[in-house]
Amino acid sequence: MADSRFFKRKGPFSVQEIAELTGAELVNAPDPSRRFDDVSPLQNADASILSFFDNRKYLDAFVSSSAGGCFARPEFVDRAPADMVLFTTSDPYRAYAKAATAYYPFDAANGVVSPHAIVADTAMIGKGVQIDAGAVIGENCEIGDGVIISSNAVIGEGVVIGAGSRIGAGATISHCLIGNLCLIYPGARIGQDGFGFAMGAQGHLKVPQLGRVVIGNDVEVGANSTIDRGAGPDTVIGNGCRIDNLVQIGHNVELGMGCVIVSQVGISGSTKLGNFVVAAGQAGITGHLEIGDGAKIAAQSGVMKNIGAGETVGGSPAVPVMEYHKQTVALSRLIRKKK
Amino acid sequence: MADSRFFKRKGPFSVQEIAELTGAELVNAPDPSRRFDDVSPLQNADASILSFFDNRKYLDAFVSSSAGGCFARPEFVDRAPADMVLFTTSDPYRAYAKAATAYYPFDAANGVVSPHAIVADTAMIGKGVQIDAGAVIGENCEIGDGVIISSNAVIGEGVVIGAGSRIGAGATISHCLIGNLCLIYPGARIGQDGFGFAMGAQGHLKVPQLGRVVIGNDVEVGANSTIDRGAGPDTVIGNGCRIDNLVQIGHNVELGMGCVIVSQVGISGSTKLGNFVVAAGQAGITGHLEIGDGAKIAAQSGVMKNIGAGETVGGSPAVPVMEYHKQTVALSRLIRKKK
Amino acid sequence: MADSRFFKRKGPFSVQEIAELTGAELVNAPDPSRRFDDVSPLQNADASILSFFDNRKYLDAFVSSSAGGCFARPEFVDRAPADMVLFTTSDPYRAYAKAATAYYPFDAANGVVSPHAIVADTAMIGKGVQIDAGAVIGENCEIGDGVIISSNAVIGEGVVIGAGSRIGAGATISHCLIGNLCLIYPGARIGQDGFGFAMGAQGHLKVPQLGRVVIGNDVEVGANSTIDRGAGPDTVIGNGCRIDNLVQIGHNVELGMGCVIVSQVGISGSTKLGNFVVAAGQAGITGHLEIGDGAKIAAQSGVMKNIGAGETVGGSPAVPVMEYHKQTVALSRLIRKKK
Repeated sequence: MADSRFFKRKGPFSVQEIAELTGAELVNAPDPSRRFDDVSPLQNADASILSFFDNRKYLDAFVSSSAGGCFARPEFVDRAPADMVLFTTSDPYRAYAKAATAYYPFDAANGVVSPHAIVADTAMIGKGVQIDAGAVIGENCEIGDGVIISSNAVIGEGVVIGAGSRIGAGATISHCLIGNLCLIYPGARIGQDGFGFAMGAQGHLKVPQLGRVVIGNDVEVGANSTIDRGAGPDTVIGNGCRIDNLVQIGHNVELGMGCVIVSQVGISGSTKLGNFVVAAGQAGITGHLEIGDGAKIAAQSGVMKNIGAGETVGGSPAVPVMEYHKQTVALSRLIRKKK
Repeated sequence: MADSRFFKRKGPFSVQEIAELTGAELVNAPDPSRRFDDVSPLQNADASILSFFDNRKYLDAFVSSSAGGCFARPEFVDRAPADMVLFTTSDPYRAYAKAATAYYPFDAANGVVSPHAIVADTAMIGKGVQIDAGAVIGENCEIGDGVIISSNAVIGEGVVIGAGSRIGAGATISHCLIGNLCLIYPGARIGQDGFGFAMGAQGHLKVPQLGRVVIGNDVEVGANSTIDRGAGPDTVIGNGCRIDNLVQIGHNVELGMGCVIVSQVGISGSTKLGNFVVAAGQAGITGHLEIGDGAKIAAQSGVMKNIGAGETVGGSPAVPVMEYHKQTVALSRLIRKKK
Repeated sequence: MADSRFFKRKGPFSVQEIAELTGAELVNAPDPSRRFDDVSPLQNADASILSFFDNRKYLDAFVSSSAGGCFARPEFVDRAPADMVLFTTSDPYRAYAKAATAYYPFDAANGVVSPHAIVADTAMIGKGVQIDAGAVIGENCEIGDGVIISSNAVIGEGVVIGAGSRIGAGATISHCLIGNLCLIYPGARIGQDGFGFAMGAQGHLKVPQLGRVVIGNDVEVGANSTIDRGAGPDTVIGNGCRIDNLVQIGHNVELGMGCVIVSQVGISGSTKLGNFVVAAGQAGITGHLEIGDGAKIAAQSGVMKNIGAGETVGGSPAVPVMEYHKQTVALSRLIRKKK
């Protein structure tokens, strides 16, 4: 299904292997040695294909699908087509992610340092590292085992990159410690000076930015996103965070574990997010705030105040989301009256 | 007029040549062999200069201009200065664009592959291609005739670029098919993984992104804009689209023909735009929506619902633009009452 | 304090030297030859450390700090701990900036052109210039004394860069004149074509963009920001401007002196800002406007009209900031009534 110019498929895998890999329960699986060739969404699937049904919106597609096998929640078993092998699980999308990764594993380092890469003599390069053409690795860098540094990325002096992390093409990283299994996308800018200066009519005087960016394990930083280093303390990105494209993270910002920061969000200097905070697209968070664990920030919100754990806010300036919806309704009523 | 360090001028061109080139009607043109040296806006023009009058706001500048020749709508002929050669047309700006391009043609490929470019042996390179220093071309790429790949751009394995397209400096492209005569600006990121994962407290599990980015002919993608590849289906950009700088386009998004997407707009995953949709600066469009042909989205709008063909919306959340204007007026009245 | 992998410290400096360097008055300084080893925020400082107290919010930290020396306003002298050497000044943050820069001077060019840089034969390179691996310098560029061009930056044909300016890794610059002592951050895109075309159902026809970007002295352009060149006139950035990350500046825009443009702001084509204008994060300014000297634009504002000198605006569409606050209050009252 996937274009073979870009994707190399493994497999096929048997019903048995898929069940073991994902921990799903088998239903309607007379032949555990039957094999599926590929994965695909429900709409395009045939008998050789493994698919998934997660979002109830697609129930019709599930009911009429020709997919040979499908991950689904147990309560939908009796809605499945008669010939479909079912892999039941409480989280079909997660199970599908595991199966799809078996068919299409993420790139592993090929162990080749390109003769067209420029690697400082003092850089410490781990085992099996891949460094592509045009990449530049600075003095005293520490590059962990199995890391991939893509073409034309620039890794500044002293930067540490943990095992299994992958750095995208054209990304630039300085003043930064990166953990294991991170994924930095093309064009991300990490570790440059924050926006720090003493403002004044006689000119804005730059203040040295003496902190670092410290990134945990299993973090993603999206394409062309920017993370400034700390001014004195560090900028910190916790384990498991997912940062989308074109996001701005200012100096001294701290993200807890598992935060999800959607495209074009901006987080101003010294703001601290707890664990598993979600900020939707184009939201802005002003500086020096505390955002509690599990808080949710709606798209385009403008957050000007602290947010408690578990709260959901919307609007600009942001207010609790129920209040925001009422404001929207009140505004639309107001103009109906005026007609 | 234009700085010769950066622009090489052709010409001069005669009145006759310009009329033929643009299809404009000649008025007040006693000498068709008269030649103009250069193009320029009305304000700075002298007798040797060809200019244009398109926006009625600049009528005074037109009436008092010293420009030797001018593109203008027929109804303004009697407002022109006595000595001005007129090229009348219903679309003076388009006629000017054609004339200006004759004086200052866009860069054509010089046919030179720099010895400092790194081109995979298996890449298929067309005729007359220009590849600048530091550019990296991956295995099995297909680069069409007359393509320009600028310095330090990175073209990933298997990418196809159609004839006459130009890729800006430092841009990175993977998992992508690009049509003919496209213009990808510096730092654009095309084809990286979309923001797709199974969220959960036990960690956010990455889902393989198995689609591509498919870009039509005559498309522009602005500087530092990001277009993620599809998750399974493709991300599709139709013929003739114009995408400005710092725009985010999520996985599986589809743009019809001729869409105009202004700077810093974000379009979330799986949303489909029809033909000739216009989204103004900093607008956000949430995921899984349908935006009809010719719809117009005002700057900073937050689109949360489908938009019908030909509709214009504004505000966040976006509503029909007349409603949005009334809301704005109602709000300002509300506070006047409270004083 | 600062990680020695990334920062090289100078000093120590004596009380006397620091006073002379910053122009601060000495209070409680029995031994002018006493030396401080490093600089740091108040919280982490010990007797060997020089710190500063600027924001009244941190009074408690000041009162209880163990810092050996501190910049502070004269009125806080009697709140200082008994052993603290005081450097009094009306602008402690600015004085600290100067002292911190003595301990941690900004990078100076090392005078080395890397053998892995690609420099055109016709480029004019000043004295002591540093050009790092993978940087590409085009024909006829003029690079001033002491300039740093970082790895994989691309400087297009004819570009002029003034003395002491620093160009970040992976930045691309074309059609541009840059003054002295500027700092262009990684991934900035300067000088590409503006978003200019004649729109139409028969296709959007590109109009040649014949202007330049002209940048004054002491200007900063943030990471991944984009500045398009002029369409005919130039795009102009005045002396001392500070532009943050991911900012978009359209063609023909003019910024006066000392403007501060915070992250993710967008300024549309042909808009002119006076001197010392401040635009906060994610604000948008539409095209063809005039923004007066010293105007302030709140975060996420949508500016649709001219702004007078010294005015402050907020909201989308933006209104005078007092009006904006009243609107916010009125909206929240409106929904309280409806409960």
